[in-house]
Amino acid sequence: MDPDAVAKAFVEHYYTTFDTNRAGLANLYQDTSMLSFEGQKFQGTQSITAKLTSLPFQQCKHGITTVDCQPSGPAGGMLVFVSGNLQLAGEQHALKFSQMFHLMPTPQGSFYVLNDIFRLNYA
Amino acid sequence: MDPDAVAKAFVEHYYTTFDTNRAGLANLYQDTSMLSFEGQKFQGTQSITAKLTSLPFQQCKHGITTVDCQPSGPAGGMLVFVSGNLQLAGEQHALKFSQMFHLMPTPQGSFYVLNDIFRLNYA
Repeated sequence: MDPDAVAKAFVEHYYTTFDTNRAGLANLYQDTSMLSFEGQKFQGTQSITAKLTSLPFQQCKHGITTVDCQPSGPAGGMLVFVSGNLQLAGEQHALKFSQMFHLMPTPQGSFYVLNDIFRLNYA
Repeated sequence: MDPDAVAKAFVEHYYTTFDTNRAGLANLYQDTSMLSFEGQKFQGTQSITAKLTSLPFQQCKHGITTVDCQPSGPAGGMLVFVSGNLQLAGEQHALKFSQMFHLMPTPQGSFYVLNDIFRLNYA
């Protein structure tokens, strides 16, 4: 398994799902998962999905600028650090963002998101 | 222990050390530590310290805009996500950056940096 390839595949899957079927992100979280979104904290699939699906925009498109990844320790987790831009429908300028994910392995050989921290980078 | 207070104290200590005694950052890393700096990867105290002390600027000042933290799992680690700006001596404009740290507990009750990912946020 090439960690960089896994990280890139996760990032593509995550943002494509976000932009086309946001409620489908629920499959990536579990009840121990945590989200910090612009400083607001949420825990658990239901709470996280409720936040993500109630953001004050419906249509958006993420563009990815950089993806970095590192193994997070003996438990087999992986840290994925993303920078990119977020284009909202009807807005002239894209917003820059940074986001990190801590992915943990599932017994089925996949990953779920244990930690998710999102911040807009204001110019 | 308040995780947010620990994260803030770590962040203040890290950037103060970076700005005043960069070689002193060696104390925060161990041989398993990883640094991704603008996409370049380094592992171990010596390699990481060599990179940080050989950056092409001597004087700098970090300003912190946001600090987010979350526990990273049962091993007692903590994820710290920082956004801020970096003012280099003699440069008119500060550079924006995002950085994440994965802190792991030491037997002495302190923390070391297991993972460190740094990116400039180009405007």
